[in-house]
Amino acid sequence: MERKLLYEGKAKRIYEIKDKPGLYIQEFKDDATAFNGLKKEQIKNKGILNTSITTALFGYLMKNGIPTHFVEKISNTEMIVKRVKIVQAEVVCRNIAAGSLVKRYGIEEGKELKPPIVEYYFKSDELGDPLFTEAHIYELGLATPEELDHIKELTLKINSLLKTFFAERKLLLVDFKLEYGKDDEGNIILADEISPDTCRLWDSETRMKLDKDRFRFNLGGVEEAYEEINKRLS
Amino acid sequence: MERKLLYEGKAKRIYEIKDKPGLYIQEFKDDATAFNGLKKEQIKNKGILNTSITTALFGYLMKNGIPTHFVEKISNTEMIVKRVKIVQAEVVCRNIAAGSLVKRYGIEEGKELKPPIVEYYFKSDELGDPLFTEAHIYELGLATPEELDHIKELTLKINSLLKTFFAERKLLLVDFKLEYGKDDEGNIILADEISPDTCRLWDSETRMKLDKDRFRFNLGGVEEAYEEINKRLS
Repeated sequence: MERKLLYEGKAKRIYEIKDKPGLYIQEFKDDATAFNGLKKEQIKNKGILNTSITTALFGYLMKNGIPTHFVEKISNTEMIVKRVKIVQAEVVCRNIAAGSLVKRYGIEEGKELKPPIVEYYFKSDELGDPLFTEAHIYELGLATPEELDHIKELTLKINSLLKTFFAERKLLLVDFKLEYGKDDEGNIILADEISPDTCRLWDSETRMKLDKDRFRFNLGGVEEAYEEINKRLS
Repeated sequence: MERKLLYEGKAKRIYEIKDKPGLYIQEFKDDATAFNGLKKEQIKNKGILNTSITTALFGYLMKNGIPTHFVEKISNTEMIVKRVKIVQAEVVCRNIAAGSLVKRYGIEEGKELKPPIVEYYFKSDELGDPLFTEAHIYELGLATPEELDHIKELTLKINSLLKTFFAERKLLLVDFKLEYGKDDEGNIILADEISPDTCRLWDSETRMKLDKDRFRFNLGGVEEAYEEINKRLS
């Protein structure tokens, strides 16, 4: 397929496809960054593993009625996706306290959150992806109240589906980040990826971290953790 | 009145009163701090001016049906207030973009916000008073959904009252911070203060800043600005 690079992010590239104006190729890279780009390395095979994990999880969600941008996996590191306009609010859903929730508010790591907490972050590298609220999202014109209600509802449904899916594989879904997009018909659909780059996943019994926190905090065994997740999903 | 210091904050002291267990004395200091205590100075007569301004504004709000902790002004720098347990969520209401809204989200200073934006900040010097959301407030147990709905409703009503009051005095109410408390009967009432320390106030015509931003950003004429506000309120 003839393609043209449209956008290169920290962990992925997006290409336009010639003769298929409604579709993009999403390619996963081995590059890993943390702390808003301050820490930057490569994780061997991450592109392959995250492609495998994301396509498996998107397939599962679609079978359960969640609309996503996923069309087809075309190689080890590439999937075809629907063209969307990304909503510039990243959505984080938390089941267990970790990461910035611990650092920002002093909540104890590992505390179960009941109900789950949904947060929004302004997708802006320049501003450091700051936390913001529904009121800011409306003021910035990033989504309407109806769209955001729908996004929140989809997020809680996805959370419920993923929690069950991971629990069956002896994994705790601690928290995860989603991005949504608007397709050509104006429908809000799930976009981006779901992988150990964007989820915190702990082993249910040992509570061992099997996600990007191993990279963030130099815990070692980063590739092995991603491989373990992929193995449990297959 | 025999008194015992209960709490000393950055700009005020709170005393228990012997023989009056339901009441406190709130004393305003000349001390001014900014940027989470990094900048620290004294502003001459600030205690006197903020006592005068706060008691005038609380009196006006109470006449208009807003429950507050204000009981009586007893000296140039002191007011008697009802004993409350402070809700550890500071409430900020914004009519015009300024301050952290500009810095955090890149919204242009001076832009009118429609509708006004209500934000919550975790009252914690240690954590640097971070922005948080209703979900965090419930998780931290700082207020119930019913209490927070009531706080938001009161805040918007106060905003509307204050905007009118200031407009009649050729002042723009850009934004302001409120603190609420629970009285002995469990009622949510307005507490703390309302002054140029806690409001951004601009002259309606010249848009000159007449508030603590003059201190924060070394604009000069700090005492004069507080005096001008007090003069326009009398």
